[in-house]
Amino acid sequence: MILVLKQNASENEVSGLIQNLKARGLDIHESKGENTTIIGLVGDTSHMSEELLLANPAVSKVMRVNEPYKMANRKFHPEDSIITCEGKKIGGNNFAVMAGPCSVESEEQIINIAEEVKKSGATFLRGGAFKPRTSPYAFQGLGCEGIDLLLAAKKITGLPIVSELMAINQLEIFNDVDIIQIGARNMQNFTLLKELGRCGKPILLKRGLANTVKELLMSAEYIMAGGNENIILCERGIRSFDNFTRNVLDLSAVPYLKKVSHLPVIVDPSHATGLAWMVPTMSKAAVACGADGIIVEVHNNPQEALCDGEQSITPNEFDALMKQVRKYLEIEGKNL
Amino acid sequence: MILVLKQNASENEVSGLIQNLKARGLDIHESKGENTTIIGLVGDTSHMSEELLLANPAVSKVMRVNEPYKMANRKFHPEDSIITCEGKKIGGNNFAVMAGPCSVESEEQIINIAEEVKKSGATFLRGGAFKPRTSPYAFQGLGCEGIDLLLAAKKITGLPIVSELMAINQLEIFNDVDIIQIGARNMQNFTLLKELGRCGKPILLKRGLANTVKELLMSAEYIMAGGNENIILCERGIRSFDNFTRNVLDLSAVPYLKKVSHLPVIVDPSHATGLAWMVPTMSKAAVACGADGIIVEVHNNPQEALCDGEQSITPNEFDALMKQVRKYLEIEGKNL
Amino acid sequence: MILVLKQNASENEVSGLIQNLKARGLDIHESKGENTTIIGLVGDTSHMSEELLLANPAVSKVMRVNEPYKMANRKFHPEDSIITCEGKKIGGNNFAVMAGPCSVESEEQIINIAEEVKKSGATFLRGGAFKPRTSPYAFQGLGCEGIDLLLAAKKITGLPIVSELMAINQLEIFNDVDIIQIGARNMQNFTLLKELGRCGKPILLKRGLANTVKELLMSAEYIMAGGNENIILCERGIRSFDNFTRNVLDLSAVPYLKKVSHLPVIVDPSHATGLAWMVPTMSKAAVACGADGIIVEVHNNPQEALCDGEQSITPNEFDALMKQVRKYLEIEGKNL
Amino acid sequence: MILVLKQNASENEVSGLIQNLKARGLDIHESKGENTTIIGLVGDTSHMSEELLLANPAVSKVMRVNEPYKMANRKFHPEDSIITCEGKKIGGNNFAVMAGPCSVESEEQIINIAEEVKKSGATFLRGGAFKPRTSPYAFQGLGCEGIDLLLAAKKITGLPIVSELMAINQLEIFNDVDIIQIGARNMQNFTLLKELGRCGKPILLKRGLANTVKELLMSAEYIMAGGNENIILCERGIRSFDNFTRNVLDLSAVPYLKKVSHLPVIVDPSHATGLAWMVPTMSKAAVACGADGIIVEVHNNPQEALCDGEQSITPNEFDALMKQVRKYLEIEGKNL
Repeated sequence: MILVLKQNASENEVSGLIQNLKARGLDIHESKGENTTIIGLVGDTSHMSEELLLANPAVSKVMRVNEPYKMANRKFHPEDSIITCEGKKIGGNNFAVMAGPCSVESEEQIINIAEEVKKSGATFLRGGAFKPRTSPYAFQGLGCEGIDLLLAAKKITGLPIVSELMAINQLEIFNDVDIIQIGARNMQNFTLLKELGRCGKPILLKRGLANTVKELLMSAEYIMAGGNENIILCERGIRSFDNFTRNVLDLSAVPYLKKVSHLPVIVDPSHATGLAWMVPTMSKAAVACGADGIIVEVHNNPQEALCDGEQSITPNEFDALMKQVRKYLEIEGKNL
Repeated sequence: MILVLKQNASENEVSGLIQNLKARGLDIHESKGENTTIIGLVGDTSHMSEELLLANPAVSKVMRVNEPYKMANRKFHPEDSIITCEGKKIGGNNFAVMAGPCSVESEEQIINIAEEVKKSGATFLRGGAFKPRTSPYAFQGLGCEGIDLLLAAKKITGLPIVSELMAINQLEIFNDVDIIQIGARNMQNFTLLKELGRCGKPILLKRGLANTVKELLMSAEYIMAGGNENIILCERGIRSFDNFTRNVLDLSAVPYLKKVSHLPVIVDPSHATGLAWMVPTMSKAAVACGADGIIVEVHNNPQEALCDGEQSITPNEFDALMKQVRKYLEIEGKNL
Repeated sequence: MILVLKQNASENEVSGLIQNLKARGLDIHESKGENTTIIGLVGDTSHMSEELLLANPAVSKVMRVNEPYKMANRKFHPEDSIITCEGKKIGGNNFAVMAGPCSVESEEQIINIAEEVKKSGATFLRGGAFKPRTSPYAFQGLGCEGIDLLLAAKKITGLPIVSELMAINQLEIFNDVDIIQIGARNMQNFTLLKELGRCGKPILLKRGLANTVKELLMSAEYIMAGGNENIILCERGIRSFDNFTRNVLDLSAVPYLKKVSHLPVIVDPSHATGLAWMVPTMSKAAVACGADGIIVEVHNNPQEALCDGEQSITPNEFDALMKQVRKYLEIEGKNL
Repeated sequence: MILVLKQNASENEVSGLIQNLKARGLDIHESKGENTTIIGLVGDTSHMSEELLLANPAVSKVMRVNEPYKMANRKFHPEDSIITCEGKKIGGNNFAVMAGPCSVESEEQIINIAEEVKKSGATFLRGGAFKPRTSPYAFQGLGCEGIDLLLAAKKITGLPIVSELMAINQLEIFNDVDIIQIGARNMQNFTLLKELGRCGKPILLKRGLANTVKELLMSAEYIMAGGNENIILCERGIRSFDNFTRNVLDLSAVPYLKKVSHLPVIVDPSHATGLAWMVPTMSKAAVACGADGIIVEVHNNPQEALCDGEQSITPNEFDALMKQVRKYLEIEGKNL
């Protein structure tokens, strides 16, 4: 349930209203926009009378929210959420470009790539330290050392870092990581999501391979219900019957998510297509769809990458990609 | 198998080579580019010796083609195919915009819409006369009368017309239709495809709901093998597990098809998403992906449309869409 | 809308009621069971008053039918439909076993296989004469000659024959074919379905690769609305993301279809799995699910079959399969 | 790589061979059958010479294993694995029936259901204490108290218990649980799988909603590589485009998994179909497919179940199901 407050409601009236609602066992979610303040109610509101709420002098409008996601719902927060991270913004008219290798492999590799992608315009450095691999016998990432190398690259380039966390007990290791990525396979690891609700860091939440957009929003809701509202959604391809691409990049999810939710939405063309040559094209399409950013795999030597080389582009190709993306961003009125 | 000819090969040498190949029971597909001429061989080439072919004075290079589609393969025809229709071109740097109602409903309706979409920049008028409906009890289209009304609208606006053919015995009725559309459900109606091979008209071939891009190319191959090479491919969404959109618009299919085939590829955002508000966004994304055109449902009164109203945009919305699409076309170096 | 008649309604009352309903522009579908007679109304019944209908002395009960399929709906025809064909029955407690090669290849082949499968218990001979092949360059079947060979095999073995029809203009060639099969790719070839409504022959209608069970029923409805109620539905696997089998055999479709429809439902384990070794197991599972029959590919020499050899079982394997199937049929109270 | 040992190889020869192989950095997996002993090698065997291995007096045959799963591969362990748990066996010719409510709700409920299902022939009691729910606002299970109530029901009925574990830090709470269930959403929670490798308990591993059977086997391999070989695989339905059932029960996965792996495979018809009335039919089909067991939701009052009531059957319905299942087990030569 949502209460739109009157513009001239006094602070006293509002705090009285909130106290009153809390006393009824409801959780309150306040969203102050430029012109309107909205109070979202989470909990069992089936017994709340709309007439009675409208009788309150601070309330101008009452709406029931049918969607099962509340805090992630745009009705609760009509303006775009903007996530701030180390001075960089994601959401609104701020476009984020996260680039880097699938796996951190060595200090030289990660610093070299970080410097290259920064030069071309990347705003974040991505890199995997803990890798979710289908086979127990495949390279599992450098682990803690990988995180240290990312931090070293951050020190030199200033780029905030994004890396995937696979389990709760790694949270401490991620203390200095700027954005915690939750991979497609963990999108419905609900125990993990609850813990992330208690950590203040921005969370990059990837859509599962066979998860609906509603389920993605419900997973965001898990984190938000725990107190952490800094969530970036990510479309990265879904499973389908055809295999000319690794997955099917469901770009319609971008305008849809942005319509029903206020959270920023980014696109991962590398994992979605699995084809390096297609990454620049689908990056442009992502901008055209209204995405708030892209996350792209860049490797200095894709053919010898320890992981996912066939979908990684070179720093030179990334530079060309950025030149094209900038033209599209200009049309869309977005800034890097 | 493909033979790249030497630039200085004489006409005599070439015609001798071709006769020789035909004598071995092979079908010949010649593609003359600006700088190179390519001869594609269709048939059983397993016993052909590459060494022997290279020994021919006209031949500079010999390549085997692994893909099961031959004439649709870009290796057979390295340059973009450009379809010409009533003076309009599709393919290369020519972008086609096909707009109009799902169903032709009346003379007033179709002429009104035709005039509106032409004003905004549409280059073709689309409209359904024979409608493939899931239910036998649903409106099945105006039939022959619908074709007549489309022709009346063409007379007034000059827009060439596109309409769906459902069965072989309708071919005569489609005599004056400019582009014959084959719907998703008929993509593997092989008897129909063979007949279309014998008709010279451009064919707009839609990808089936659960068909791979390779199967789409094989269906194009059916038509081409029959002698008709004027084929426009169309991505219109595939079936998946999520239903926030009617289908999943698989935009990656566009760059993929254009890489492996020389045929033009257009996108149908209306049927793919089923959501009018999403059509403009996905039209822009289609341009960004390198599509050679879009086909969009426009209705003067979507709420009372006899068919698919919820995915139709109004002429005003179409006009706004075209303004955006033009900006993207400019970046991509394409013309309406 | 459905009217359940009173048991003691007189013939006069019933015919008066029917005339009255027809006069209102409704199509009438009468189903006489042992104890109850049901009248199904097809057409726009939104304006019909339930009270008024109940006031008729012949009517004991009135029900609205929400499903879009009417004549295929079990509410219209509560008892199992039993299709009779050359003395063989399909449906109720009659289990049909259709066996034979994917393609008819020669007289010797088809007669040999027909004799073998008959000996093991098959009740119908299946064989393809017109083959829907993905590639225009693949073997397309023997055509009319194939039908002749099937008829020759029928003459010798007495087995009624089942063969796939691909286009309307083949109807005449199928004059002596006992059951006309409509393949998955033609399930929504609505023009063809309408024609089949005018032919009295039993139709074996296969579910499309990506069609819902509701769409399958709507396609049956197309044929029934045209006047032909002899329809056998067939589950033959749907497309999915995994490819260890050719398709996913959706066995749940069997009990579901039998619950909501009165039409017989058979299973094609050969095309669904694409793996000969799995056919016997999935045939048993089909019986366990309540299927009214199976259609199985049997070839005397699978390794040299012109089509689909890897999914064909040998006559010996078919014989072993039948021994197992018989045990399951006994438990389920069904007869061959 | 697999070494089949000679039947008359001496213990000395074998231990010498094993030492030799370990010295080359390979992990050894020994499988002693009645007539043959097999040694599976895990690790990089690309440089091992088959000739040299065959020269060893204890070795009769050498085979390379192409599949990425090794310990789960039937080539490593040709005989069926049989899991023993509290005196009950799963696998081989032993059929397991796990029955109970989706969620444990109260002591009375769980004991009542446990007694009922035992009477009808269930061999295990299933019940959820920690529930993975899509919504953070839905009932999340009784947690530790739920486990205590399951143990109380075990004390009274003697039925070993099966319950789902959602996170590593719950392992201690599951000390007395007999079989740990890993749900579909955690099938690729690799950190969790690694931990389960260190615990000796039988693991019931459910196939993910959009996971291939190969990925399921790779997840089993994760656990086995950690040292725990007591794994029961479970098919529980995959996501598809149709929604007449909650998921599509992919029964072909059963014979396939049993062919390529030695691990027992059970079927969950309740979650797969989501329809109580379909559970008995699909349970019979599971037996026909060669499954080693079923896991079925039974609730004393489905209409008021806190979770998944629409797919739960009553104790009476379960009793009827068991009567039918027994007939099928007899044909298949399996024991409860």
